[in-house]
Amino acid sequence: MKKYAFGIDIGGTTVKIGFFETEGTLLKKWEIPTRTENGGSQILSDIAEAVKAELAERGLAADTIEGIGMGIPGPVLGEKVVNKCVNLGWGVFNVAEEMAGLTGIENVKAGNDANVAALGEMWQGGGKGHKNVVMVTLGTGVGGGIIVDGKIVAGSFGAGGEIGHIKVSKTETAVCGCGKTGCLEQYASATGIVRMAQKMLSEDERPSALRNVQYLSSKEIFDAARQGDALACEVVEMAGDLLGMALSYISCVVDPEVYVIGGGVSKAGQILLDTISKHFVENAFHASRQAGFTLAQLGNDAGMYGAVKLVL
Amino acid sequence: MKKYAFGIDIGGTTVKIGFFETEGTLLKKWEIPTRTENGGSQILSDIAEAVKAELAERGLAADTIEGIGMGIPGPVLGEKVVNKCVNLGWGVFNVAEEMAGLTGIENVKAGNDANVAALGEMWQGGGKGHKNVVMVTLGTGVGGGIIVDGKIVAGSFGAGGEIGHIKVSKTETAVCGCGKTGCLEQYASATGIVRMAQKMLSEDERPSALRNVQYLSSKEIFDAARQGDALACEVVEMAGDLLGMALSYISCVVDPEVYVIGGGVSKAGQILLDTISKHFVENAFHASRQAGFTLAQLGNDAGMYGAVKLVL
Repeated sequence: MKKYAFGIDIGGTTVKIGFFETEGTLLKKWEIPTRTENGGSQILSDIAEAVKAELAERGLAADTIEGIGMGIPGPVLGEKVVNKCVNLGWGVFNVAEEMAGLTGIENVKAGNDANVAALGEMWQGGGKGHKNVVMVTLGTGVGGGIIVDGKIVAGSFGAGGEIGHIKVSKTETAVCGCGKTGCLEQYASATGIVRMAQKMLSEDERPSALRNVQYLSSKEIFDAARQGDALACEVVEMAGDLLGMALSYISCVVDPEVYVIGGGVSKAGQILLDTISKHFVENAFHASRQAGFTLAQLGNDAGMYGAVKLVL
Repeated sequence: MKKYAFGIDIGGTTVKIGFFETEGTLLKKWEIPTRTENGGSQILSDIAEAVKAELAERGLAADTIEGIGMGIPGPVLGEKVVNKCVNLGWGVFNVAEEMAGLTGIENVKAGNDANVAALGEMWQGGGKGHKNVVMVTLGTGVGGGIIVDGKIVAGSFGAGGEIGHIKVSKTETAVCGCGKTGCLEQYASATGIVRMAQKMLSEDERPSALRNVQYLSSKEIFDAARQGDALACEVVEMAGDLLGMALSYISCVVDPEVYVIGGGVSKAGQILLDTISKHFVENAFHASRQAGFTLAQLGNDAGMYGAVKLVL
């Protein structure tokens, strides 16, 4: 194993570049803008320039670098081929081959950004020390990343870890972004939690601290629940119940050692972990009840860590 | 790769032994009794004698054999160590090492029998040509085997593929064998399907051909449904609905290319596949809806096929 590698997380507005020691230390990180114009044709060459400039500054040759890993906001086939990425303007092409050509670094791999972030949390974050990890990202939506025996489960049709679209209600009438009804993310994402609270607030006259909040977010709901606000507690219980139930399904499939909870909603901390794990244990098969619950630790750096892990 | 290998499926009453060519042809199969007395201490030596006798008869030395794979009705850690197996009287020990010592064949691996059967169906049965396969066994219970990238997902606590214990009902009062309520196998196993039919028969006075059956099994229920019996159709729909829903959850986790349906209930054939896949498509995330449904093909030989695949 060579001493250095790059981990690169390509987002719709910025590209996060990490220069790592291959044993796991992030030596330097910086961002460049993602130029999505002209079908995103500049993105890879911008990254290649940044990589080459970094090597020149450090006086390192391309052959001192173990590889370049990339996280991409779309489906990736065989760790090489992007299968359309709307946010970047990309169609179908071999992103690994192209980056290798641009940089002279042979070992290039790519993965879907949510899956790659899960790999990063397994390696150096909340799942450190484990090989079977499921990451649950509670943000605008509910994302997931399934890691079995240290490797990402991307799925046959790119739907591996699409846990936000597990159907948890048969009676829902509101439609999810995916076109179905009753998906987990309609209740347990930041948006879903606020939606449930607003629904409860409109359905009865109960006093609640949440009635005084002008722009309700999941943060105010968890804060109020921590203060004992009954309606807020009910919302948190409902989200935790559906999450705990859905994670019990996942344990009947891949049976991870640990669930790592990340995304904006996870800033709620212990109250969230406690509520999810309580409902998980109620619903899980006995052998799986030992699974642990932990918070994500790498924040926005998880993608860079997971990307570099792809090539190690 | 050497030319031959053994695939051995150890059951509670008989041991099935298969002598294979490593490209996949089963040359000979036979059974010996499973001697479970004295903590099952004779089982491995009985198998070793059978293996050595077969080699002697064919004039083959131990070093002409690629390996011995074994399926075991209990949890197996790291493809080597049995972690208690009540049906065989076994505690915790390195079954691979012991079999290697008894036969002089170094390459020995073991796996849980349900998982190994799934691997067999992937290799030479209903899932042939695919690397991402989920096998669903509808027998006395509902079992599962998850194959990702050609490898068994055994799980961290031995619960990988325990899909019969996905909770599909929150209102059930009857208790499952596992101690929970509302598990998939309470509705979709052979036993569960009969239970649902008996419940419906007792709850109303509707005419049904099933009222004339003295010993009701899932076969009579599917036969009656095929004849258009309304009550039987309703039972089949209910089982198919819950199975299709549960498999849609599985697709949000590992997203297999194909589901292979086996076990006694699968003798119902096309009507079963059609009902499951209809409800699967209703509930699945759009990308996963392309997943295929097929019947298991290897029957009781699946365990031998999967066992030998472990060592290839």
